Amino acid sequence: MSTSTRSFAAQSATSPLASYTLERRTPTDSDVAIEILYCGVCHSDLHQARNEWHNSIYPVVPGHEIVGRVTSVGSFVTKFRQGDLVAVGCMVDSCRTCPQCLRGLEQYCDNDLTLTYNSPDKHTGLRTYGGYSEAVVVDEAFVLRVPETLDPAAAAPLLCAGITTYSPLKHWNVGPGQKVGIVGLGGLGHMGVKFAHAFGAEVVLFTTSPGKVEDGKRLGADQVVISKNADEMQKHARSFDFILDCVSAEHDINAYLNLLKVDGTLCLVGAPENPLPVAAFNLLMGRRQFAGSGIGGIKETQEMLDFCGEHNVTSDIEMIDIQQINEAYERLLKSDVKYRFVIDMASIKQ
Amino acid sequence: MSTSTRSFAAQSATSPLASYTLERRTPTDSDVAIEILYCGVCHSDLHQARNEWHNSIYPVVPGHEIVGRVTSVGSFVTKFRQGDLVAVGCMVDSCRTCPQCLRGLEQYCDNDLTLTYNSPDKHTGLRTYGGYSEAVVVDEAFVLRVPETLDPAAAAPLLCAGITTYSPLKHWNVGPGQKVGIVGLGGLGHMGVKFAHAFGAEVVLFTTSPGKVEDGKRLGADQVVISKNADEMQKHARSFDFILDCVSAEHDINAYLNLLKVDGTLCLVGAPENPLPVAAFNLLMGRRQFAGSGIGGIKETQEMLDFCGEHNVTSDIEMIDIQQINEAYERLLKSDVKYRFVIDMASIKQ
Repeated sequence: MSTSTRSFAAQSATSPLASYTLERRTPTDSDVAIEILYCGVCHSDLHQARNEWHNSIYPVVPGHEIVGRVTSVGSFVTKFRQGDLVAVGCMVDSCRTCPQCLRGLEQYCDNDLTLTYNSPDKHTGLRTYGGYSEAVVVDEAFVLRVPETLDPAAAAPLLCAGITTYSPLKHWNVGPGQKVGIVGLGGLGHMGVKFAHAFGAEVVLFTTSPGKVEDGKRLGADQVVISKNADEMQKHARSFDFILDCVSAEHDINAYLNLLKVDGTLCLVGAPENPLPVAAFNLLMGRRQFAGSGIGGIKETQEMLDFCGEHNVTSDIEMIDIQQINEAYERLLKSDVKYRFVIDMASIKQ
Repeated sequence: MSTSTRSFAAQSATSPLASYTLERRTPTDSDVAIEILYCGVCHSDLHQARNEWHNSIYPVVPGHEIVGRVTSVGSFVTKFRQGDLVAVGCMVDSCRTCPQCLRGLEQYCDNDLTLTYNSPDKHTGLRTYGGYSEAVVVDEAFVLRVPETLDPAAAAPLLCAGITTYSPLKHWNVGPGQKVGIVGLGGLGHMGVKFAHAFGAEVVLFTTSPGKVEDGKRLGADQVVISKNADEMQKHARSFDFILDCVSAEHDINAYLNLLKVDGTLCLVGAPENPLPVAAFNLLMGRRQFAGSGIGGIKETQEMLDFCGEHNVTSDIEMIDIQQINEAYERLLKSDVKYRFVIDMASIKQ
């Protein structure tokens, strides 16, 4: 038993995304069936559609920034009911018993994390299929509640770009009295600026693009530094409590390590393809730390959505129809989006 | 006014160390004059004698693991009196007013840290000269007390090798119930094993030398892993709370990052010459941290010496006369020492 569901899929690393009918499982007693209203477009979607991480199994239906309405719930479901505005992020299941899952860090599950797409699916024995589709069925433990006060389209990117920046800013206790750097103004970086500002920190945005200075300030940065300008960088030496590095392209980590105070942390959330050279003295001379962080756990993702509801934080988006997805990918490669594409999933019914 | 003092100095990057008479300042009211009994031989001594860090100004009198007896004290000195067993480590002064100095982290002083040798000397306008000499004059704020129960020769390496490993193990709260790795069994590593064991952690030593397995266990390691054996390494994946990396040679940091638990830290205390490539996913997939740490502050160095007095922790040493220093440097380059050379400074009077 399953339900035929319209989607857009890549059938190979070189084929454009195109219409594809997939089968969603019949909901179990603990499942929530969701009509997808909006799905954000993450750079990971493109990487996996094109097999750039060398682990794609086709067809790939991308999409892990999902907002929708509950259409039905299983008999054991207690947290949601039909009509609720809900969300699904990067994960749809985990082992739920390892130390990481028990700590609410399902994203680091020791055993078998099930990602929202291109991951082994325990129910079907096939792969999971993501949010570029009209509907999805997810265990209630991995469904989030979206505050009704938020614009549901602009809330979709919170599920990846949002939590990926919120979680490390929270983990490293960013707040008032602290000087915090955000490196890169893209999908992740623009959320990093918004959250760091909302948490009350002094926010400095680093960008290579002079054209982004005004936008950076509008989004909440107190200062914007053009990172190619060595003199301007040097003025900030040894002054940052925390720097969130949102850049996935190759870049010089040492230039940012030198801007940290003693005991400061530079946390990477982008994932550059090649290893980053780190000069030992930059760490030794100030007990500095170079860290990484991956998305966030389910409990923290809900906390983030609630915070966004209270403070009216959402992503700056450009809405597209699903039929524009291939064009959107090309623009994404040129960083030509302010700052996240979101698919209006009503378009899939055209 | 100054005091002629016998020492051993390098007069250039290529000349062997040889007898040299330097002038120590006449003690001020806050100074302690010390007859040097023993001085440990740190790899940094060799680096700076040979200008390998490109900042040496000659003559260079190395030595920053100094133990001696107080011969006189200035009129404002309250902590020491003639005859006390004392020590001097890597620093002899700092600004004392910046946030780092006020936190007891003088080693990260924002303004003008005065290292024990090859550093600008505020008193003379020349350079500081280190412990390869018969006497030294140091402000009491940078003099440490050595427990009389310790072997003073074996205590000398505590002033650099000891505090450099003690401080990060303390900072990252290493203790019972934790699995801790020590990478490399040399001057630093053998102290790391002793301290981690004394703090009650489960200690795993990583070494490239099968010949060091027995010694590792004798020094306190619960297990010794030959790091060239990939299968043996893989058995420890995702299992360490903390790893202290004491290796100064080029080595693969990623192999150790993969052994850390979620939220684990790999701390570097060796200083490899070239930048170390770090794969982003190794940090992202577990919120891991790659950190560095440099020696320790004065208060913590005293705490370390007191701990060593209570737990009878000292370095494993090989005693030499000052006339053997050039030969000792050659052996140091071959890691042919178990595990620290200490100069018996009585030999300088021969």
